[in-house]
Amino acid sequence: MRKIYVVGIGAGDPDHLTLQAAKAIGRTDVFFLLDKGEAKQSLVDLRERLIRAYSQPRRRIVEGRDPDRDRTPADYTGTIADWRHRRSLVVEELITEHLKDDEIGSILVWGDPSLYDSTIAILEEILGRGATTFEYEVIPGISSVSALAAKHRIGLNRVGQPFQVTTGRRLAEGWPDGVDDVVVMLDAQQAFTRYPEAEIYWGAYVSTEDELLGAGTVAEVGDEIVERRTAAREQHGWIMDTYLLRRGQSRLNGSE
Amino acid sequence: MRKIYVVGIGAGDPDHLTLQAAKAIGRTDVFFLLDKGEAKQSLVDLRERLIRAYSQPRRRIVEGRDPDRDRTPADYTGTIADWRHRRSLVVEELITEHLKDDEIGSILVWGDPSLYDSTIAILEEILGRGATTFEYEVIPGISSVSALAAKHRIGLNRVGQPFQVTTGRRLAEGWPDGVDDVVVMLDAQQAFTRYPEAEIYWGAYVSTEDELLGAGTVAEVGDEIVERRTAAREQHGWIMDTYLLRRGQSRLNGSE
Ligand SMILES: C[S@@+](CC[C@H](N)C(=O)[O-])C[C@H]1O[C@@H](n2cnc3c(N)ncnc32)[C@H](O)[C@@H]1O
Ligand SMILES: C[S@@+](CC[C@H](N)C(=O)[O-])C[C@H]1O[C@@H](n2cnc3c(N)ncnc32)[C@H](O)[C@@H]1O
Repeated sequence: MRKIYVVGIGAGDPDHLTLQAAKAIGRTDVFFLLDKGEAKQSLVDLRERLIRAYSQPRRRIVEGRDPDRDRTPADYTGTIADWRHRRSLVVEELITEHLKDDEIGSILVWGDPSLYDSTIAILEEILGRGATTFEYEVIPGISSVSALAAKHRIGLNRVGQPFQVTTGRRLAEGWPDGVDDVVVMLDAQQAFTRYPEAEIYWGAYVSTEDELLGAGTVAEVGDEIVERRTAAREQHGWIMDTYLLRRGQSRLNGSE
Repeated sequence: MRKIYVVGIGAGDPDHLTLQAAKAIGRTDVFFLLDKGEAKQSLVDLRERLIRAYSQPRRRIVEGRDPDRDRTPADYTGTIADWRHRRSLVVEELITEHLKDDEIGSILVWGDPSLYDSTIAILEEILGRGATTFEYEVIPGISSVSALAAKHRIGLNRVGQPFQVTTGRRLAEGWPDGVDDVVVMLDAQQAFTRYPEAEIYWGAYVSTEDELLGAGTVAEVGDEIVERRTAAREQHGWIMDTYLLRRGQSRLNGSE
């Protein structure tokens, strides 16, 4: 039976790699790369560096072309579903063409595969069609959220309290119900500016060489973050940032 | 300056260790262990195994006695604050007595230090008192949540949707507002049984040799999980379990 590993590689630092992920890379016959079609060179670099460092010399690398995607769609879920479908066709072709019987393929995923990533859903879609069969296994990775929290030396939750993980798009619609602590990903609109009283723990390119960090109340540091964000995005051609917004000071920080 | 690493060691599998964490363990002069005072032998075992595998031969190991803690307090936050305070006194004494100038100490933390763990808050409390000084750095780890999602091969969020991370205590009060996906930790009361229509992705001792997994609608598999949970708790003397509850089927699974 053919096998595919979905390998979480961490959020930027090559040393985020787990021993389990390094071993999976070492057992891999074929790496499937989807060209992001964008200027996210550091992502491509990290992937290549990890393959070079931990894979066996006879492994193959095959590249598929990531289908284009509307970045500002009216129907977000529909557009993603369609994009994912086209992506699954590309991945299926790569598997059919390049992964032989009893071989192991790997797809390296940024951060942790369980967080705002479509690789698992794409493999399920392929298996659901029934034409291409394989086993697959998911290997967890350090997420950008864990990396951000570590750099700021904070807990995500406060004692006995919940927190929410959401997107910039959602946060722009209003503060989520029932939580005072919100982790925000995929924010193209700097939705935090709506909440001057909240404390923000912000990070861009966290745990890469280009890392930027900022913290304080949004009223105090919000404008500065907007400026640094804009400048960095201009310089790199793209930005990846995540933040925790924290409201109210009454409860113990940290945890348990 | 003395330095302390707060090292996330993953949720049970020794291969969850990151290269960054292995390197930190290798640089450590003194490991601070807090005896959990409980029968959680596999936690103690994992810690010892990692120290044995990755530390240098001249490192020291010092143990402090974890203060007792009321497990069913009326005032949860107050009790935790008090317990944390007493714990910070124990840790401060360990640091003062055992960590020499320019030495590196490490505290190994289960899972990821940002998730329902008090180590960071304890160090901040010590620094806040002002009598004992040190630098400290947090090293992220694979959380039990990432480990659970990987074993079930699921995303935590659905496309463009938020999710909440909360405690069993909270979930017992009602389904959280504004989310259809809820990750539940620290659940001593099997709060999922309240939600027969939800899908559950459950795991106990995830990524250890004793791992138990179960999935399905709560109506179908809830009773069985309650039984397996009770039997396992009896057998081991303790249990660590986490689950994702998912409500509604309308949206794409997975991500992005
Ligand atoms: C498609 S999601 C993938 C998340 C990834 N699976 C993870 O576990 O971090 C991309 C989003 O993750 C966040 N992100 C990923 N890497 C990051 C980094 N190094 N620094 C800051 N944010 C990051 C950003 O919010 C970005 O918009
Ligand atoms: C005090 S919290 C610590 C969480 C830890 N910092 C982490 O990142 O997983 C303890 C809770 O974590 C969850 N947990 C930790 N390890 C687990 C495992 N191996 N399997 C299932 N749940 C686990 C359980 O919900 C448990 O009640």
